[in-house]
Amino acid sequence: MRMVDIIEKKRNGQELSTEEINFVIEGYTNETIPDYQVSALLMAIYFEGMSQSERADLTMAMVESGDQIDLSAIEGIKVDKHSTGGVGDTTTLILGPLVAAVGVPVAKMSGRGLGHTGGTIDKLEAVPGFHVELSSDEFTRLVNEEKLAVIGQSGNLTPADKKLYALRDVTATVNSIPLIASSIMSKKIAAGADAIVLDVKTGAGAFMKDEAQARELAEAMVKIGNNVGRQTMAVISDMSQPLGFAIGNALEVKEAIDTLKGEGPEDLTELCLVLGSHMVVLSEKAKTHEEARKMLEDAIDSGEALNRFKAFLKGQGGDASVVDDPAKLPQAEHKIELPAKSSGKVSRIIADNVGTAAMWLGAGRATKESEIDLAVGLMLKKKVGDEVKEGESLVTIYANDLSEVEKVKAKLYESIEVSSEGHAPALIVDQVTGQ
Amino acid sequence: MRMVDIIEKKRNGQELSTEEINFVIEGYTNETIPDYQVSALLMAIYFEGMSQSERADLTMAMVESGDQIDLSAIEGIKVDKHSTGGVGDTTTLILGPLVAAVGVPVAKMSGRGLGHTGGTIDKLEAVPGFHVELSSDEFTRLVNEEKLAVIGQSGNLTPADKKLYALRDVTATVNSIPLIASSIMSKKIAAGADAIVLDVKTGAGAFMKDEAQARELAEAMVKIGNNVGRQTMAVISDMSQPLGFAIGNALEVKEAIDTLKGEGPEDLTELCLVLGSHMVVLSEKAKTHEEARKMLEDAIDSGEALNRFKAFLKGQGGDASVVDDPAKLPQAEHKIELPAKSSGKVSRIIADNVGTAAMWLGAGRATKESEIDLAVGLMLKKKVGDEVKEGESLVTIYANDLSEVEKVKAKLYESIEVSSEGHAPALIVDQVTGQ
Repeated sequence: MRMVDIIEKKRNGQELSTEEINFVIEGYTNETIPDYQVSALLMAIYFEGMSQSERADLTMAMVESGDQIDLSAIEGIKVDKHSTGGVGDTTTLILGPLVAAVGVPVAKMSGRGLGHTGGTIDKLEAVPGFHVELSSDEFTRLVNEEKLAVIGQSGNLTPADKKLYALRDVTATVNSIPLIASSIMSKKIAAGADAIVLDVKTGAGAFMKDEAQARELAEAMVKIGNNVGRQTMAVISDMSQPLGFAIGNALEVKEAIDTLKGEGPEDLTELCLVLGSHMVVLSEKAKTHEEARKMLEDAIDSGEALNRFKAFLKGQGGDASVVDDPAKLPQAEHKIELPAKSSGKVSRIIADNVGTAAMWLGAGRATKESEIDLAVGLMLKKKVGDEVKEGESLVTIYANDLSEVEKVKAKLYESIEVSSEGHAPALIVDQVTGQ
Repeated sequence: MRMVDIIEKKRNGQELSTEEINFVIEGYTNETIPDYQVSALLMAIYFEGMSQSERADLTMAMVESGDQIDLSAIEGIKVDKHSTGGVGDTTTLILGPLVAAVGVPVAKMSGRGLGHTGGTIDKLEAVPGFHVELSSDEFTRLVNEEKLAVIGQSGNLTPADKKLYALRDVTATVNSIPLIASSIMSKKIAAGADAIVLDVKTGAGAFMKDEAQARELAEAMVKIGNNVGRQTMAVISDMSQPLGFAIGNALEVKEAIDTLKGEGPEDLTELCLVLGSHMVVLSEKAKTHEEARKMLEDAIDSGEALNRFKAFLKGQGGDASVVDDPAKLPQAEHKIELPAKSSGKVSRIIADNVGTAAMWLGAGRATKESEIDLAVGLMLKKKVGDEVKEGESLVTIYANDLSEVEKVKAKLYESIEVSSEGHAPALIVDQVTGQ
């Protein structure tokens, strides 16, 4: 088998066989196939696409390129959730305890990463004492007993995906649906998921700004999952404005607590109930989404979801009393309001710009070396469609370093539009079941 | 300027600027841009093509990537000819003395290369004593005095093209009209041509098997030439069967002598007159092609073309007496006929297979290290459309090593079809003037 023939075949629009895809991924992982041939193939894939079976083959070849997490010691169907990323997305913090409360085992492997705020682990570290340095046995025991544990990324998962992603980044081949879909799915499968719920964001704050593209990505991932024997569902949700009110690490933990109490922002609560229902159904703890949703609502009302969050924090060394006394979370020194310059309705909140403003405050990492300030961030006081009076606060800025605040304010004024009309966007754009 | 942005721009079907193309070619030549980015760009070009101005920019950027031959010391308009390669193509050997005989200066830089037979220099070395090791001054003097000299490739011409070609070869991006056209034109321009006549072959023995593709390539090269200030013309000629009768080095020298005497094969003679007329017109030695053709026919009839060939051989150390006594050329030990198995008409001679058979005899190089046997080769006794009787010879095989002959015979029988009908193909498929 010769790589040049495989490139030519794809270039001519023909379907690659399982053997050919394995040859490429194995050869690239063990460095017998050079970058320059792989980048030519990636560009040919950009133009010619990949069939369903090629996508499934690519996904599994990447899964098999490295370690795979074995979650078989954990009882029940392990459902993982993945979001394509957005601004102020606190769903992971909420969904874990929420579905764990109704018996769904959540064995979460998470990271830190770059972005507007930290990753799930960074956020949880806002809780004093909380840590993710668990042994594999401890992790398994915690999930079996408490139904929820979070562990840091370990092992050499999907090295082929890491190499491919780095190459795509410098060869203008990131933006290819089959490549994005295979990349995401390979990571979830290597991390041991039996079933997967996807939250594909669309709008200004999302990677997929365009709804049609978001739908295409969602459908691509659902088909891959189902083709490789992992039941997969996707929700397409709005990320034109930030989700919830909080953008920042401790602020999002506080917002998660509020939501688990039933006092969270409407959009965040709704998205968690929708995604959670899918997780409950996929793990076979309920037969229908209606039934699942009722179970989750009951878990919030009864306090069981909140209790599960406390038990989870405690299980990993965290001070669970923050749940009842959020003042124990890191607090920013300064709270600065952003007064509306005119009265009207909020017509637009450009999510990614708001996220960038939070990052400037120190809430997220611009580079791998950046330090995060867990206390800082933004709390939206208004969302799209809300009425606002001149002088009323649009946002509360939580800052420690005042030097960035003027820049942040200017960015926020640019990003939040007040005019005569404004309508809240639909939160759930669509759902893709693969049926 | 970032390479990844340039790749993305081309990927999106946008036109690259002169600065961007220069950035790519300079960066690739001096190794600040890696192979893997260039191969992604090449694949994007394969799919998105290049505009006329991009092609001109790419050509000139490759010309400027290395040395450029300065032919200004040679009087007159220097017209170069390029053929896209075929089987038994003896035109270069004939055209040089033929147009030199009517005053067109021919300052030819030539190579050895791989293929069915050797390159022009290999063929000329069949003449005892002939050599191409000329100083630059000697070369200039010979062209000014004799109107014709051939020199071996020297200097670092179009290094960017060499690197790009090697990369294209392993990334399935060879077959792109703008890339092929720019590559050929850059080499001719770097070699100092003021004007260029192109012979684009089409048919089984050609690189462009398909007539539409040959026409596209011819038009692409003519436009590039005219866009960069080099008057360029192209002839599209048939290469479904070999050109002339001879395929082999000494055999082609003999055929060239015959043609310069006015006793050559009809197709070869005609193609030389057509290509030669264009060269004469482009070098402004005649106003019309009719006038130019008449001049060339006269040069053959008067013996001036043959005399020019003798003077040329002598000027470069060769034994010019071979012209009158071709038995002084290297002779193969064995001459073996290939008898027709049935009577009828020759309906097909698959040119590239016949070329491969010649290479097996030792006429050409399979790899850079192969040694050429100048004496061996094939002489076609019949061409497509000719009547043939059972037992009559189709081909004379000139061999030194008998061990390959059975294989060669089998290949030739496979390649030459005799049936009830057979029609000679049109030799000149089309001409592209750029007007």
